[in-house]
Amino acid sequence: MTDISSPIYTICIFALRKFPLLMNIPVPEVKVPRVVIIGCGFGGLALAKSLHKTDVQIVMVDKNNYHTFQPLLYQVATAGLEADSIAYPIRKIFKGQKNFHFRWGEVKEVLPDENKIITSIGDLKYDYLVMATGSTTNFFGNSNLESKAMPMKTVVEALNLRSLILQNFEKALLAKDVAEQEALMTFVVVGGGPTGVELAGALSELKKHVLPNDYPELDLRKMRVVLMENGSEVLQVMNEANRKAAEKYLKELGCEVWLDTGLTNYDGRLVDTNNGKQLHTFNLIWTAGIKGEIVKGLTPETINRRGRILVDEYCRIQGCENVYAIGDVACMITEKYPNGHPQIAPVAIQQAALVGKNIHRILQQKEPLKFNYFDKGAMATVGRNRAVVEINKFHFGGVLGWLTWMVLHLMLLVGFRNRLVVFVNWMWNYLSYDRNIRLIIRPFERNQGS
Amino acid sequence: MTDISSPIYTICIFALRKFPLLMNIPVPEVKVPRVVIIGCGFGGLALAKSLHKTDVQIVMVDKNNYHTFQPLLYQVATAGLEADSIAYPIRKIFKGQKNFHFRWGEVKEVLPDENKIITSIGDLKYDYLVMATGSTTNFFGNSNLESKAMPMKTVVEALNLRSLILQNFEKALLAKDVAEQEALMTFVVVGGGPTGVELAGALSELKKHVLPNDYPELDLRKMRVVLMENGSEVLQVMNEANRKAAEKYLKELGCEVWLDTGLTNYDGRLVDTNNGKQLHTFNLIWTAGIKGEIVKGLTPETINRRGRILVDEYCRIQGCENVYAIGDVACMITEKYPNGHPQIAPVAIQQAALVGKNIHRILQQKEPLKFNYFDKGAMATVGRNRAVVEINKFHFGGVLGWLTWMVLHLMLLVGFRNRLVVFVNWMWNYLSYDRNIRLIIRPFERNQGS
Repeated sequence: MTDISSPIYTICIFALRKFPLLMNIPVPEVKVPRVVIIGCGFGGLALAKSLHKTDVQIVMVDKNNYHTFQPLLYQVATAGLEADSIAYPIRKIFKGQKNFHFRWGEVKEVLPDENKIITSIGDLKYDYLVMATGSTTNFFGNSNLESKAMPMKTVVEALNLRSLILQNFEKALLAKDVAEQEALMTFVVVGGGPTGVELAGALSELKKHVLPNDYPELDLRKMRVVLMENGSEVLQVMNEANRKAAEKYLKELGCEVWLDTGLTNYDGRLVDTNNGKQLHTFNLIWTAGIKGEIVKGLTPETINRRGRILVDEYCRIQGCENVYAIGDVACMITEKYPNGHPQIAPVAIQQAALVGKNIHRILQQKEPLKFNYFDKGAMATVGRNRAVVEINKFHFGGVLGWLTWMVLHLMLLVGFRNRLVVFVNWMWNYLSYDRNIRLIIRPFERNQGS
Repeated sequence: MTDISSPIYTICIFALRKFPLLMNIPVPEVKVPRVVIIGCGFGGLALAKSLHKTDVQIVMVDKNNYHTFQPLLYQVATAGLEADSIAYPIRKIFKGQKNFHFRWGEVKEVLPDENKIITSIGDLKYDYLVMATGSTTNFFGNSNLESKAMPMKTVVEALNLRSLILQNFEKALLAKDVAEQEALMTFVVVGGGPTGVELAGALSELKKHVLPNDYPELDLRKMRVVLMENGSEVLQVMNEANRKAAEKYLKELGCEVWLDTGLTNYDGRLVDTNNGKQLHTFNLIWTAGIKGEIVKGLTPETINRRGRILVDEYCRIQGCENVYAIGDVACMITEKYPNGHPQIAPVAIQQAALVGKNIHRILQQKEPLKFNYFDKGAMATVGRNRAVVEINKFHFGGVLGWLTWMVLHLMLLVGFRNRLVVFVNWMWNYLSYDRNIRLIIRPFERNQGS
């Protein structure tokens, strides 16, 4: 990451402003309006797709050259899926879409007054700008936690977590004393939302089915998986039956569920909590908060304390007629959602569809439409044959929920090859009770960046 | 990599010698002889398997926790296969083999007089030691080349190469002048052996079928793939018909084949050769030499100038009754092979079988057997429907060769899941003329290590 407070950055910015023509990102010159989309998550992807027939030039900028299917990151982290099966090359997604252009770079600053963005590869003018930058892990300013806990929001972070889990088991074999060995074999997941629940479930399955074969020399009863949740129940977004079911499933798998427990400190080994409980672990995974991924340059009043950009019912950013924000990074306050919509893929996809439609309408001199969220429900899986699903007023769990979860996730994955590879892996994992991808390809070292 | 000449290393070695009990790698105490195997390539793997019924304790030490199927690395580098499908967790290979123990660590030194090895995780006594450390890229002391050229001998190196290829295409889009753009789009593979030929073929296929879809804004005619070979023909290990066929296949795919051309210098951009030809490239892949991966501690007389350990016909290292070397790192001089056997998987596997059998025989007070190499032939693939195969006196190419190559490589892969995933990918790539895994997951930066 470039440090944007460094003098080099300042000099670069100066140079960029001084010699704009030299530093522009080259894109084809056309006479139609240019829509710049920052980020190719669920929102950015859906938006660019929805504009394929609109008479605009789309330029998408992303720091990765691939779209990440975030809901399955926890399976990459627990050696169940290869990273390559949940990431999809952006250029391939838009193959044949003539009005689409991708540029691999990191956006450093937005200059709304000049209708311009500044990136690591040059600057770029826009007619319409859409911030679809998503969210990142929120450590709530706890720098100790930030340097010691493992986040899991990107492919690289998931791969780092996979390496760490396996490395610490290799180290456990060599441990000189029992306390150290136990700390190496203890896994604490903080945050009882869907990500935390699914990860804790997958770790418990590793303990039950996979690691005993790999480490016959270790006493696997010493391995602990603890899910720590501030509130009184897990999966608080779901209804009560599902909340209880998920907790039951986790306990059946041997996961300890610590409710009403907030983490107060973690020094890399000792976990302190607000109710006096303590434990030692070298593996603490933080899924207890996210914040919007903000780009410099917007007025501070438009950003709330969770790092989300306040938008109106058209997803427009206050004071900018032609700048939008969608998905996790956007916060649209409505009567039903006084804190903004939930930060999940369906919101991003629906907002993308709306903004796409509205850009099209505006170009045709029509009135833009207002956003109306259609809640499709929620789901989470907790190991084999166990999942909880809510669709409209229906809710169910067990094998049926698990099959529903699988089918829906396969459908949502981008690309047929990825679906096929994920399907092969799932069948294989199910039948063999195994997780095959227990590879330490790049050993994890703290502060190696992501 | 730890610098073994540093004072810290010296202090560690001192500590290890002073407090051996404290620093021993913990392994179960048993009464049977201990066989320590360094490295889980084709040789190490076959040896440990062959000893599964022998009354010994096997301890394998490897710096990776997985076995790499090296013949398919070039497909990882060219976005055709995920790394995870050609790497296989060592612990899983030996699941259920009670006399096998794996320790993840790097061997730093061998002390034959003390029957001991020193590793990054402690030291370890042995009764029998087998060096199966394989080979690494040989830059023949050219440090300029070493720092600027891309090797392709490990999974991480193949992934780095994949990143570099894609990064340079992204950069080509932004290039300010034509010369720079052409250098970004030029790929030079040095070395016309099987690895170089297969890689050059795969790169040519990227040019023909894949990259034009990804980069409609670039003139792909500017992309060049050059295979550079010192000798007068490619695939010198094969017979003449196959050598000619491979060259023809490469040219059909649009690859330039520069024969009788040796690289004399590469400064990161300009390639100089011994016959006056020059070109500019930011992508130079070096497959023109390997050397044995040597561990410190053996007497220098036992190591030849290609870094191979001289062994007798039992694969024993001169002057060490109980230390063996097998595979790429070993050099057994015979009448038929005055420079040692070829550094390929079948030699390693056959030597492993011999050493396994001989350890068994020695424990039963029987005479050890001598090594006799059975040459099974050779093969190389050059893009879809094109391969050259030699089996005994038969040689053939084209579609039949290509199918033979595929079936044999699928059979040789470790693990059913990996075979299935590779098969799915191959079918997919064949039918779609595509390579799906065009992901820059960890951008390549020079001197980031491997």
